[in-house]
Amino acid sequence: MTPMVPLIAYEQADARVRAVYDDIMASRGVDDVNNFWKALAHDPDSLEATWSRLKTLMGSEGALDPLTKELIYVAVSVTNGCDYCIRSHAAAARKKGMTEAQFAELLAVVGLANQTNRLAVGYQVPVDDGLA
Amino acid sequence: MTPMVPLIAYEQADARVRAVYDDIMASRGVDDVNNFWKALAHDPDSLEATWSRLKTLMGSEGALDPLTKELIYVAVSVTNGCDYCIRSHAAAARKKGMTEAQFAELLAVVGLANQTNRLAVGYQVPVDDGLA
Amino acid sequence: MTPMVPLIAYEQADARVRAVYDDIMASRGVDDVNNFWKALAHDPDSLEATWSRLKTLMGSEGALDPLTKELIYVAVSVTNGCDYCIRSHAAAARKKGMTEAQFAELLAVVGLANQTNRLAVGYQVPVDDGLA
Amino acid sequence: MTPMVPLIAYEQADARVRAVYDDIMASRGVDDVNNFWKALAHDPDSLEATWSRLKTLMGSEGALDPLTKELIYVAVSVTNGCDYCIRSHAAAARKKGMTEAQFAELLAVVGLANQTNRLAVGYQVPVDDGLA
Amino acid sequence: MTPMVPLIAYEQADARVRAVYDDIMASRGVDDVNNFWKALAHDPDSLEATWSRLKTLMGSEGALDPLTKELIYVAVSVTNGCDYCIRSHAAAARKKGMTEAQFAELLAVVGLANQTNRLAVGYQVPVDDGLA
Amino acid sequence: MTPMVPLIAYEQADARVRAVYDDIMASRGVDDVNNFWKALAHDPDSLEATWSRLKTLMGSEGALDPLTKELIYVAVSVTNGCDYCIRSHAAAARKKGMTEAQFAELLAVVGLANQTNRLAVGYQVPVDDGLA
Repeated sequence: MTPMVPLIAYEQADARVRAVYDDIMASRGVDDVNNFWKALAHDPDSLEATWSRLKTLMGSEGALDPLTKELIYVAVSVTNGCDYCIRSHAAAARKKGMTEAQFAELLAVVGLANQTNRLAVGYQVPVDDGLA
Repeated sequence: MTPMVPLIAYEQADARVRAVYDDIMASRGVDDVNNFWKALAHDPDSLEATWSRLKTLMGSEGALDPLTKELIYVAVSVTNGCDYCIRSHAAAARKKGMTEAQFAELLAVVGLANQTNRLAVGYQVPVDDGLA
Repeated sequence: MTPMVPLIAYEQADARVRAVYDDIMASRGVDDVNNFWKALAHDPDSLEATWSRLKTLMGSEGALDPLTKELIYVAVSVTNGCDYCIRSHAAAARKKGMTEAQFAELLAVVGLANQTNRLAVGYQVPVDDGLA
Repeated sequence: MTPMVPLIAYEQADARVRAVYDDIMASRGVDDVNNFWKALAHDPDSLEATWSRLKTLMGSEGALDPLTKELIYVAVSVTNGCDYCIRSHAAAARKKGMTEAQFAELLAVVGLANQTNRLAVGYQVPVDDGLA
Repeated sequence: MTPMVPLIAYEQADARVRAVYDDIMASRGVDDVNNFWKALAHDPDSLEATWSRLKTLMGSEGALDPLTKELIYVAVSVTNGCDYCIRSHAAAARKKGMTEAQFAELLAVVGLANQTNRLAVGYQVPVDDGLA
Repeated sequence: MTPMVPLIAYEQADARVRAVYDDIMASRGVDDVNNFWKALAHDPDSLEATWSRLKTLMGSEGALDPLTKELIYVAVSVTNGCDYCIRSHAAAARKKGMTEAQFAELLAVVGLANQTNRLAVGYQVPVDDGLA
């Protein structure tokens, strides 16, 4: 697949973009950034804001642990049908310890939720007393 | 909201439906079933298959623990915009121990994933080497 | 729910809109048009084009019979979570002969398809030889 | 496209998975199963439950005939943008008798429903009296 | 990607389809039509209705200018994850003057809207007084 | 609709949340913030990051003007079926000058794009040479 814009490699990036790339590589202990960031680099405001939010939210222990948050990320990406996101966030989840059995069970839950979501909507089920 | 079909109360249900209702109430330790099941009861095959799958998958420790699975369920329901499902599965998650801080962080992850899903798709980002 | 624009009643409508309303009422044998058309009437081009297409496609025997087409309409509306569309097209389907058992089975298929769609996407299943 | 997990061929499958594969092949009169099942086989619970439900619901005459149900399946898959599902269920529908003209008309209805769903939602059209 | 139906080239098209192709080529000043039309040509009613609506709505100055409308088209296509539509309508937008900076900002808005849509739904935020 | 969490009024908010509320009110020239922010205030990180991004992106002239960006926001919200977002961003667009005719044309484009997205996907139309 050809991207909509040329991917910006580190060598081609200006100082502002390089600073983000450097932080991504340092945070993740890798020596290159994913294609996602190389596309987003065309919009430095968006690059900075997205990385900043992702680093804080996904990279640290919060109310939820990093693996659980990554599983949720994958679940959303599967529901939306984003191939790139499924592959990159499943890889991230594996790095954080997701087993193959966990991945399979995650997909089973995602499938079931998508099914029952439509049953609830299709029957126009009214919210139960106490939950409204 | 009026449902598309009359909700079937326990007293009105036939033996096959009652057996499912009984199992739901026993499994959950409640004395009535949610409106979802009372609508689905119009289709006993669907009622039995859905409850059976949900009970096995969501009710037990698997590769993932029950709370994590419930969080995934909520994440999908929010992404799909199913009000009924958000309210009923958030309630289920709270019963399983979800704190308010966890709920808020879950929503933050769901929001971020929905955002970056569209950035990846909009830029038509090619899958990274090693993930294709 | 308050609509985003005032609904345009027959008495308030100009000649161009009235002509569409008249055709809807005559085609369906009813003495008023649904709220959908009264909102869309704010955009006469859209009103005419939408009604014209809907009348031709949904109102007549084509390669598919009118009831089958209405069931498909409902299936899409449930998948998208459009309450108004579910209610109005389920009513249309009932007029064309949909039984309660058919409605329930339709929802079961919609639920199952939404489930397996995510399993196929989540596992990133490659298209089978012969179907690619 | 590389799947997220290795596809499990019949020879590699254990007895539980083989039993499902055997039933799929016997039910459909084919000598191999689709890639979908070979991926899902990593999760035998999900494999059994999904096949069991699909066999009962899609393979038999119910309130709706098998072709109509397959058309609904395709309509959902198109709305969700699942390429694999579109190709495999359109193939299944053709086996059950779907003509090219029916496929084209199905897509026209799916397109129209997706269009009017957004018009109804965008105008926030209130449900008509008698349908609420 | 193989299409679901053979694409119909101009030479293979009948008079009714050729008339639409001729109008598309004349309106756009090109000497061939896109693959979309060559697939849709299997359903001449749909071809005519879709082209007619698209020509009127997208090709002319209305309440909104043609570029703004094309940007909206791209935003919807990205939200739905339609690769073909993203590529063809981004190309159309570029022809109408969309700059790379505008494309990047468009995607940023689409991403942000998808994010906040889920936050609003996930928290089940009630509509503010005065907007209900 | 009852929100999932109590809305946090200004008087109840701590200093960090008040600082965001103050900035929203000052930026918009209003004397209270919308319910969206009062729900999001349960997650101050998310509140700050979302407001900061929204203020920068939506509030200022960029490659696109503020009204165009607001129209894109509404288009996404309609496609996703988020009632709250449709109402609040349509109100914001009206403040920035959106006329009723523009709103109607926006919805027509959103409807058409949703329709043709499914036709392109349903026919599995291959990307045209030169756009791949």
